[in-house]
Amino acid sequence: PVNYKYHHLESSLVYTGSTCDVSPAAERLRHILGEDDGSPTPTIFTEMDTLQHEGGGIRVERVRKFEEKVEEGGERWSKPHVSTLTLHSLFELRTCLQTGSILLDLEGYSLPQIVDEIVDRQIEDGLIPPDLKEKISFVLLRKHRHQTKKPIHRSLADLGKSSNTASSKFCVSFTDNAQSRSMNDISDTPSTEQLKNKFMKKIPRDAEASNVLIGEVDFLDKPFVSFVRLAQATTLGGLTEVPVPTRFLFILLGPHGKTKSYNEIGRAIATLMVDDLFSDVAYKARDREDLIAGVDEFLDEVIVLPPGEWDPKIRIEPPKKVPSSVLNLNELGQMNGSAGGAAGGEDEELPAPHELGEELKFTGRFCGGLWLDIKRKIPWFCSDIYDGFHIQSISAVLFIYLGCITNAITFGGLLGDATDNYQGVMESFLGTALAGTVFCMFGGQPLIILSSTGPILIFEKLLYQFSKDNEIDYMELRLWIGLHSCLQCFVLVVSDASYIIKYMTRFTEEGFSSLISFIFVSDAIKKMVGHYYPINRGFKPDYITAYKCECIAPDQGETSNSLSLYIMTHVPIKVTSIKKDCVKYGGSLLGNSCKYVPDLALMSFILFFGTYSMTVSLKKFKFSRYFPTKLRTLISDFAIVISILVFCGLDFLLELDIPKLHVPTEIKPTRPDRGWLVMPFGKNSWWWYLASSVPALLVTILIFMDQQISAVIVNRKENKLKKGCGYHLDLFWVGVLMAACSFMGLPWYVAATVISIAHIDSLKMESECSAPGEQPQFLGVREQRLTGILVFVLTGLSIFLAPVLQYIPMPVLYGVFLYMGVASLSGIQFWERIKLYLMPPKHQPDFSFLRHVPLRRVHLFTLVQIICLAVLWILKSTFLAIIFPVMILGLMVVRKLLDLMFSQHDLAWLDDILPDKDKKKKEDEKKKKREKKVAEPESDEEVREN
Amino acid sequence: PVNYKYHHLESSLVYTGSTCDVSPAAERLRHILGEDDGSPTPTIFTEMDTLQHEGGGIRVERVRKFEEKVEEGGERWSKPHVSTLTLHSLFELRTCLQTGSILLDLEGYSLPQIVDEIVDRQIEDGLIPPDLKEKISFVLLRKHRHQTKKPIHRSLADLGKSSNTASSKFCVSFTDNAQSRSMNDISDTPSTEQLKNKFMKKIPRDAEASNVLIGEVDFLDKPFVSFVRLAQATTLGGLTEVPVPTRFLFILLGPHGKTKSYNEIGRAIATLMVDDLFSDVAYKARDREDLIAGVDEFLDEVIVLPPGEWDPKIRIEPPKKVPSSVLNLNELGQMNGSAGGAAGGEDEELPAPHELGEELKFTGRFCGGLWLDIKRKIPWFCSDIYDGFHIQSISAVLFIYLGCITNAITFGGLLGDATDNYQGVMESFLGTALAGTVFCMFGGQPLIILSSTGPILIFEKLLYQFSKDNEIDYMELRLWIGLHSCLQCFVLVVSDASYIIKYMTRFTEEGFSSLISFIFVSDAIKKMVGHYYPINRGFKPDYITAYKCECIAPDQGETSNSLSLYIMTHVPIKVTSIKKDCVKYGGSLLGNSCKYVPDLALMSFILFFGTYSMTVSLKKFKFSRYFPTKLRTLISDFAIVISILVFCGLDFLLELDIPKLHVPTEIKPTRPDRGWLVMPFGKNSWWWYLASSVPALLVTILIFMDQQISAVIVNRKENKLKKGCGYHLDLFWVGVLMAACSFMGLPWYVAATVISIAHIDSLKMESECSAPGEQPQFLGVREQRLTGILVFVLTGLSIFLAPVLQYIPMPVLYGVFLYMGVASLSGIQFWERIKLYLMPPKHQPDFSFLRHVPLRRVHLFTLVQIICLAVLWILKSTFLAIIFPVMILGLMVVRKLLDLMFSQHDLAWLDDILPDKDKKKKEDEKKKKREKKVAEPESDEEVREN
Repeated sequence: PVNYKYHHLESSLVYTGSTCDVSPAAERLRHILGEDDGSPTPTIFTEMDTLQHEGGGIRVERVRKFEEKVEEGGERWSKPHVSTLTLHSLFELRTCLQTGSILLDLEGYSLPQIVDEIVDRQIEDGLIPPDLKEKISFVLLRKHRHQTKKPIHRSLADLGKSSNTASSKFCVSFTDNAQSRSMNDISDTPSTEQLKNKFMKKIPRDAEASNVLIGEVDFLDKPFVSFVRLAQATTLGGLTEVPVPTRFLFILLGPHGKTKSYNEIGRAIATLMVDDLFSDVAYKARDREDLIAGVDEFLDEVIVLPPGEWDPKIRIEPPKKVPSSVLNLNELGQMNGSAGGAAGGEDEELPAPHELGEELKFTGRFCGGLWLDIKRKIPWFCSDIYDGFHIQSISAVLFIYLGCITNAITFGGLLGDATDNYQGVMESFLGTALAGTVFCMFGGQPLIILSSTGPILIFEKLLYQFSKDNEIDYMELRLWIGLHSCLQCFVLVVSDASYIIKYMTRFTEEGFSSLISFIFVSDAIKKMVGHYYPINRGFKPDYITAYKCECIAPDQGETSNSLSLYIMTHVPIKVTSIKKDCVKYGGSLLGNSCKYVPDLALMSFILFFGTYSMTVSLKKFKFSRYFPTKLRTLISDFAIVISILVFCGLDFLLELDIPKLHVPTEIKPTRPDRGWLVMPFGKNSWWWYLASSVPALLVTILIFMDQQISAVIVNRKENKLKKGCGYHLDLFWVGVLMAACSFMGLPWYVAATVISIAHIDSLKMESECSAPGEQPQFLGVREQRLTGILVFVLTGLSIFLAPVLQYIPMPVLYGVFLYMGVASLSGIQFWERIKLYLMPPKHQPDFSFLRHVPLRRVHLFTLVQIICLAVLWILKSTFLAIIFPVMILGLMVVRKLLDLMFSQHDLAWLDDILPDKDKKKKEDEKKKKREKKVAEPESDEEVREN
Repeated sequence: PVNYKYHHLESSLVYTGSTCDVSPAAERLRHILGEDDGSPTPTIFTEMDTLQHEGGGIRVERVRKFEEKVEEGGERWSKPHVSTLTLHSLFELRTCLQTGSILLDLEGYSLPQIVDEIVDRQIEDGLIPPDLKEKISFVLLRKHRHQTKKPIHRSLADLGKSSNTASSKFCVSFTDNAQSRSMNDISDTPSTEQLKNKFMKKIPRDAEASNVLIGEVDFLDKPFVSFVRLAQATTLGGLTEVPVPTRFLFILLGPHGKTKSYNEIGRAIATLMVDDLFSDVAYKARDREDLIAGVDEFLDEVIVLPPGEWDPKIRIEPPKKVPSSVLNLNELGQMNGSAGGAAGGEDEELPAPHELGEELKFTGRFCGGLWLDIKRKIPWFCSDIYDGFHIQSISAVLFIYLGCITNAITFGGLLGDATDNYQGVMESFLGTALAGTVFCMFGGQPLIILSSTGPILIFEKLLYQFSKDNEIDYMELRLWIGLHSCLQCFVLVVSDASYIIKYMTRFTEEGFSSLISFIFVSDAIKKMVGHYYPINRGFKPDYITAYKCECIAPDQGETSNSLSLYIMTHVPIKVTSIKKDCVKYGGSLLGNSCKYVPDLALMSFILFFGTYSMTVSLKKFKFSRYFPTKLRTLISDFAIVISILVFCGLDFLLELDIPKLHVPTEIKPTRPDRGWLVMPFGKNSWWWYLASSVPALLVTILIFMDQQISAVIVNRKENKLKKGCGYHLDLFWVGVLMAACSFMGLPWYVAATVISIAHIDSLKMESECSAPGEQPQFLGVREQRLTGILVFVLTGLSIFLAPVLQYIPMPVLYGVFLYMGVASLSGIQFWERIKLYLMPPKHQPDFSFLRHVPLRRVHLFTLVQIICLAVLWILKSTFLAIIFPVMILGLMVVRKLLDLMFSQHDLAWLDDILPDKDKKKKEDEKKKKREKKVAEPESDEEVREN
């Protein structure tokens, strides 16, 4: 059997890649693994203990998926790392398995009995003389005890001595890491230390252990090797660090002088045992040859690093993504044959096509989509509530709540300005609370957050102007527009119109969301710059007495002067509000310090920028090395809350008059002459009731696009949502709320992209990494209705929270806005591609699209996107902002035109392929495959004949 | 030969690690590599070209040290990465070399002739039928042309077709990356494109190329393999991307259907060719067996990654450090034997012992050390000047200059306060310029920057107080102290006293430099906080008219009021300086805004913190992905200058009255009643001339310790200084300058640790990485005298630069100070160890001392250091600060006591071993080795007998 491997490898070169070319090893494995009894093999955890002379250094390793070892110092597990083995040790291991004794399905219940059987078998096979039995058993049954505290440099000297004097020869022990392991021989029951071991948490319930015992003794002249598989997994007392039953035992004892070599063999078998394929083989092997075949298969798959390019001392950090485990049986043969070049990393496959799921299928039935949405969401309704009970939800609620009230106040203020307070901050609060709560309770995608948006604001502004100019009653007209729009939404719902969303690709989506993010960022900065108190530039401290602000009474000549002098000299601070009083009594402020408030501008800047950058750093803190993982996750989850508290505290300490969040405290309409209910008839002439359907159409398009694009972005595949979405249901509720808000004279609400993304980001779940060193995987989003409902209930209650909320300075909230805008940009491929412009090709990250699409094409694609956004941005700044959502349709047209500029291959990598193209492509591929199938057998036979 | 490998591997397990156990492969290699003719083998650059069907995708790879390939897109070289091969492909390559034709030392002058010879040989050997000669030659001589612009997805379809139709069968070409290669067949002279290729810069002059040609053709039924070594390296025209002469050719043509496999074999030979050992073998191989032995040796050294733990698609970034190349011949055998476990990464060696070099040897002769210092430095004197001409020097000069003048102004101001202006800013400037220039010109270590330091300041303060109280002439007393101290320094110089510095280990060094850094940081922050204008807290904009500042005339009752009213109402801004005038005329300022200057405090904070954080970010920018490396290095070199300019600009724009850097503009003593020369006699009674030797002793200790510790820190091994140091020479010049400064009444100067470290940091050189992907290595420091001299000449000239310098706000300079302090902390192991307290063991970086010393001991050691520093910090804050340098001796005593607490092993990793202990240790080791030697043969024989 020694030379078949080379033979096999040679053969694969001569015969070309037909699937019948399977190596003997693969053939064998296919046979035994094919006898699958359905039960998955348990996860294996390997611990390797090395025999130590008294006082010697410790060397324990454990492998769950990645290797950890006890450092020489002995008190610290190393970081998990990829096991780098030497090829040499793998070959030596192979030899060991060929020569050692293999005991499969041994009936074992305790370590002494098992060791007995092993040694007996070795004697039987004539591998060791019978007189060694006692010595070997003695060594193998030594207690596995914790490290002696002696420093290592002394032990080296001791070792030198002990190998000379026969008396100390059996001063050996298997050492282990547990600090307070009992000093007795191995016990049968798991000790409390074992049970308490924290490492246990990282091991799945059904795991079984594989113990590797390596030792150097001086009574042997050749290696004593034994591989044991127990019939049942048995807990062998203190053998393993954690109370996991042992299934496999590998023992290697050998003569002195080769410790390193033995250790490497031990590491090799330990690594093999946790390999998915080999552990399968180990469980199912019938004889020695099966095991060796397993080793050979493993060897065939390994990746080799040239010695000159890699220093083996560098521990390789576990990769972010590990190749999908357990090979397909049918692949086994092929792997040996043509696909030997796995390391080439050249997968010619295209990325998975754009799939929006069956939610957006056109059913063609009346209410078909809506009905499906309801059917899809009903079963989740209960879990939508109880899934919300998690600490993360608290942070999410606080974060989104702050975002929502800031938004409500900002838009409320702007709406108040635009409509002469027909809709003000109070209406904004109530409307947000009402619409949000209803939507989160009954909507199809409760992760979406409803909010006022820019286009609606502009529409209201124009509408109010129009009704004022034409002396039409604004509220009544608005009510009718709302009603029409609601009706139109219902029409869109029942006709499954949302299905057209699936023509929207990454290009459109990313364009839209980038634009919204930019608007967010620019709004936050605009609010900060110039909106507040200016800086007193050119202030000269030396002229301090020249700076003043006086109150001049109007048109009174000399008397004014004396009045002001009177006020200045006699009532310096006592009068409650001199500035107000002055303006109230018709005076005017005169002086070079009137328009300045010291420190406000800079303090606002510090609060704004500080909140933003502290949030960013705390979010990043998750990836730092400091503090335990749990604490770090907590800090990063609560990053925004912590930053807000810190900067509110700073503001509180400095006692500067930074503008604060002011929430209305009484529930009454902002404008005293309007009630809480708008009557539909009586104020305008009848034909307005019909004519209002025209502006309503604009509102409907606006709402439809805004709502559904946000929904598409929220439902992105990357977010791994599991509970399905409900585009039709969403639109239905938006329509209902539209009508309700119109009746109550509240603003209209629609999905807000940035806040919804922030909502999702704050609810992301990551796997608690099971094997040490495995990177946490993004599992999905905590999909539930609770956080949304809570946010909006809190918004409604904010009126009573005013005493607390008034401590929050507005710049802090704008900092949160800035963070939201910037955070929603990250992870957008468009943004990554923009960054590529600044990077020389050598330094670009290894994006898969860069591997497949020429850089020039990538840049061109990005440029087109940038131009589109620039055009949209310019349009948005004009009165055309009102047709903003319609412009998204324009983006979709541009995308369609891109089909002419770019090949489908490039678009598949950079964007998604449009639905119909996709279908065509698949057909193309099928055809190609068929052609290939016809072509290949021919060429195969051609070669064979030669 | 197929199975000897297993045999060999097996054998190494059975026979224990004696060095005679050498594998046949190693034996063979030792033989051929042993015939070393002294000439080093040239560096090899490998290019692999793959035969492509018309329109097919491109696949070119090149390997200098790390692998790069042309991405599928075809227009972009991938990032250099470690070549991950499959074991499979290596075995296949081995088979190829066994079966293919090997032509060694072929006389070749052109590609057609070489191809002719190759094909003839194959026909001779009966490997191919003679009728294929023409076809093969045709394929091999196809032009290597650039990629067709067709997108790849189409080419796949084309390929499918072309393999069916015989007509297109010869539409093949070797493709290459050079964009505008001529379309003619391969020419003999290098094309201009080849010569222009930028990649050429990365290839050493003596490099030779190895060309790998891989192709799939349909007229062959089994692989056509040929390995050629040319007798002379010959430029084969357009074969290679760059005009490097070709020495090796590897050709693999094979039947269809195995492209991936062929590619992998090609990658394997390409990687092997750049391996240090194998390329040696390839140059010296006598026959096929030698080459195969080379492959076997390579295989024996490779590192293996288990398939389940690593995704081969991940490209591994080149490591920071690559193992030292070319194995020692004698190691060859051992590597196979006992040291097979190289991947274990367990080197039991202790770190290199503490070496301060022969500079600090006690010569025992009069002026022995000084003489050696001069002898050592003289040869470098010229290069000390011309090595300074580099762009980096400009940045260093500006940086250090700003540090120096800030220091000069700060200490000047403080000294002025302490000595009633006997020494003020003017003296500080002149002294700094004089002392610095002289020292940098003639000193032993011109990288050291002299400056005023804290202890000297305190000494001067106490001395002035003392002389004032006892009515002694301060300047004369100071002159005598200076003269005595100078003499004492000379005594220390001639007696080689500096040698005691070698008892200072990392513990003392790091303690000292951390303390100085902390002082720097805390000074910078202290200056910022509280020293400046306070914030006007609780300012209410509504009460704006109530804020004013009035000038009240003294003791004049009613009239004062009218005076102030007069001033306020009639001369609001016209009077030049109302505040000054008011105080001048005995008035007092009254009002609630007198003590506030708006925005100054916050603006100062923004400038301070902004300068600091911008410098930090720009320094880090070097490691970002953006912009070409050169630009990034430039930005990071000029980080401090850029930050200063940006924040000066910001300050200029805002026109706030931030305190600026004010430099004296006239050369005259700060105190008008003193001249530029201090007379030694006449003012104090004679016995003071002798008594002053007692305080002089304190000054001498102070200077000696301060100077020499800074020198040790600068001369640290990590800085890789090449021009040697001059402790004795340094001290000599410090003594001379001491006397000179005393005569002129200038402050005394000594080495400043933090600024010196900053100086070194700004002059660090890194290798321009030769092979793509190799990490730049720290090469050393640009050691020269020019930057130092320039800095101090500029300092002297600052008096004339005042108009420019007055635009620099002080907070910006304090920001630079903060940066200096923090930057000098980084890289200190002590600091790294402090950080460990906050990290859970899992997340700690892989420091070598952590691998060898238990974490508990590490923490204990750090704790001792922290306590020492805390004690020093407290002492420093009291009047004991004057004996501060003596306390460093205390640190050395503590270190000595640590020998009782910690084992020498732990100390060797955490600190250095004290000189005598070191010697003892070495002896111990020697003894141990001898013992071992005696012991080992015994045990070996013991084993053999069994």
